[in-house]
Amino acid sequence: MVWSNTRDKQLQERAHQVIPNGMYGHESVAMMPDDFPQFFAKAEGTRLWDIDGNEYIDYMCAYGPNLMGYARPEVQSAIVEQLARGDTMTGPGPGMVELAETMVSMVRHADWAMFCKNGGDATSIAMVAARAYRGKKKILVARGSYHGSAPWNTPGMSGIVPEDRAHIIYFDYNDLDSLTKAAKFAGDDVAGVFATPFKHETFSDQSHVDADYARGVRKLCDELDALLIVDDVRAGFRLTRGCTWETVDVDPDIACFGKVIGNGQPISAVLGANKARKAVESMFVTGSFWFSAVPMAAALATMKLVRETDYLKQLVTIGTLLRTSLDAQASQYGFSIRQTGPVQMPQILFDDDPDWRFGYRWCQLAMKHGAYLSPYHNMFINAAMTEADVAKTLEATGAAFADLQANRTTLEPQAKLGVLKRLLAS
Amino acid sequence: MVWSNTRDKQLQERAHQVIPNGMYGHESVAMMPDDFPQFFAKAEGTRLWDIDGNEYIDYMCAYGPNLMGYARPEVQSAIVEQLARGDTMTGPGPGMVELAETMVSMVRHADWAMFCKNGGDATSIAMVAARAYRGKKKILVARGSYHGSAPWNTPGMSGIVPEDRAHIIYFDYNDLDSLTKAAKFAGDDVAGVFATPFKHETFSDQSHVDADYARGVRKLCDELDALLIVDDVRAGFRLTRGCTWETVDVDPDIACFGKVIGNGQPISAVLGANKARKAVESMFVTGSFWFSAVPMAAALATMKLVRETDYLKQLVTIGTLLRTSLDAQASQYGFSIRQTGPVQMPQILFDDDPDWRFGYRWCQLAMKHGAYLSPYHNMFINAAMTEADVAKTLEATGAAFADLQANRTTLEPQAKLGVLKRLLAS
Repeated sequence: MVWSNTRDKQLQERAHQVIPNGMYGHESVAMMPDDFPQFFAKAEGTRLWDIDGNEYIDYMCAYGPNLMGYARPEVQSAIVEQLARGDTMTGPGPGMVELAETMVSMVRHADWAMFCKNGGDATSIAMVAARAYRGKKKILVARGSYHGSAPWNTPGMSGIVPEDRAHIIYFDYNDLDSLTKAAKFAGDDVAGVFATPFKHETFSDQSHVDADYARGVRKLCDELDALLIVDDVRAGFRLTRGCTWETVDVDPDIACFGKVIGNGQPISAVLGANKARKAVESMFVTGSFWFSAVPMAAALATMKLVRETDYLKQLVTIGTLLRTSLDAQASQYGFSIRQTGPVQMPQILFDDDPDWRFGYRWCQLAMKHGAYLSPYHNMFINAAMTEADVAKTLEATGAAFADLQANRTTLEPQAKLGVLKRLLAS
Repeated sequence: MVWSNTRDKQLQERAHQVIPNGMYGHESVAMMPDDFPQFFAKAEGTRLWDIDGNEYIDYMCAYGPNLMGYARPEVQSAIVEQLARGDTMTGPGPGMVELAETMVSMVRHADWAMFCKNGGDATSIAMVAARAYRGKKKILVARGSYHGSAPWNTPGMSGIVPEDRAHIIYFDYNDLDSLTKAAKFAGDDVAGVFATPFKHETFSDQSHVDADYARGVRKLCDELDALLIVDDVRAGFRLTRGCTWETVDVDPDIACFGKVIGNGQPISAVLGANKARKAVESMFVTGSFWFSAVPMAAALATMKLVRETDYLKQLVTIGTLLRTSLDAQASQYGFSIRQTGPVQMPQILFDDDPDWRFGYRWCQLAMKHGAYLSPYHNMFINAAMTEADVAKTLEATGAAFADLQANRTTLEPQAKLGVLKRLLAS
């Protein structure tokens, strides 16, 4: 089949009539290379089909949620069974307690669990809990890190007032000196420190957490009697079967999870230590669908797969194979790429590409050959991926590299560069 | 079957180990009369079964979402079909555009739609949009009204800092003088006015919106070039097939919907006029599951039922029958009750019941006889309810009234009164 996007373009035109900007949020293709499809008809296993019928090996995994493969049978069964019994009811199902017990048993620091919908629900609960904990106000956040789109953290500043961030103090990730300075600036008013499990910002190389830094954050929080919060919404359960900072042997007081925990069903979670229990018990937080039974059934099924399968090994095997193969392929075609962060969550950026002409063109071509990659956002490996998927991906990326090589000297700067530059400068 | 709650009590004990307070949020039974079940096994049509197997006619309707009857076949089919194709993917399905077109065509003031998860997502988007609209900051909110549990509005003040509400100014609902004073206090800095469709606060009588007041709010917003926002999350589509203020012929600039629009599936919506489009287009808001296809398919099926069935007539018929029957029944047993607000969303409070001993005891007994009612929160009628359901409800409430009458002089004040009084005073 020849790739085409006739239907997608038509639907985008209709969308522009009735949806602001035609689409909004992280799944908008506004910042993606031209021709990226906006609307999808089907998803199964490692594959995604757009509404023109084009098939992709999908490395975005719904921007994270697809951990075990789309429509994973064990999870689908749990959804359908629970749906027949009840979903959104006047109270939760018994699965809520079972899920809390399960996650508390899996995540080392956790003594209790709360469930919500958005990742941002979880991070906002954690932030308010830090303030409720000792009545202090300042929240220390790593500069450039994303903790959701609520007013205290959205990267878009339209409609945001200074008071929304009056008590947010920024520091540089992986830099204990910077953190210490921020804490000193806050004086005796530090309520909590937000720690991203590792540095995973858009348009940037990723970096692993430094173990000394993580231990330093823990020590500082203990000294200040402030809560240490790990926002594991994006990375949770892709690096280890618990909180990501267990990999550096540091326990937070609260960790936020979301994305993968129901393998695509809408559920997020706050997992905390007893130290933080009274704080959350004193708060009022809720949502119309936070106690729905179906997403909890899906989460129970997903957590069973997390515990009982070798999914983690598969993520590492496939992620490593993809990384080494792409490195070799890039060299073969005379390009140098940087693949950063954990192999389960690849970020791929081109060297010598100040105006993004290589990265954007490469992703556009790979997409048209059947591999859906992002030129600016970290990607995700899912447990359904096989060596055959990687081989097929390399055909697509190989075709993209070949075109890039052939047109290297005549490529135009990325048309969206102006927007990008403004974004990067802000 | 004899009512019992052995399993529920056991599960509540387990819950207390791993969930803060054993449960949190609006579906916690902490404020309900003793013995109310916390966990539910099944929901279908008008009925709810707790985990001990007790069956209830459920007047809470999941605190709103159940509009067409639990597990309504037309909606269930749409869910299962879409689930087989795809749910949370790397972009939305085509149903998102169809749903936006549908809702824009149904809701008079709407030119565009955005979808999210929590009702509170929708109200927060509206609030930020009002500030983005002209760069002004003050938001006028009716005292005591609920617009979600984000820091700018949660009724629980633990962990909330003064800056969270630095630009929120309160006025009294249905009182134009109070609103005008609040606007004067804000000077030339009024960004938007939040209007609840009618007054529906917990522990209080409800009141309908006064049409003159609604027109006055519209006029004020026009004079100040501020956005008029109707938070229709709780009442939307139960009073009319559009925004509730269409019933008084006043159009907002933005209306927030949630709860019912997917008949229980997790989806909320912001519906706005073109006047507010640029404001939302300038913002960055998103959530991991906002673009999932299944809740949109459920919403399309629900909106079809809204358009094509006489559900609204059924809500009014049943709600009216329940109200007149309960009034008669109360008199018959020598009690006087106040049933306020629209019949589709009843609030029932006892006269001469300062310590809630009648209301709490009456609900507890009705529950044990199979009618699930709330003594403090407005209830909801759903379109699956029949005259037979009302007759069965009246058996339960009759038994409750008889007991109340027999024990009238020896009833103890409601044990939770201390908590209630603190809550009401705060």
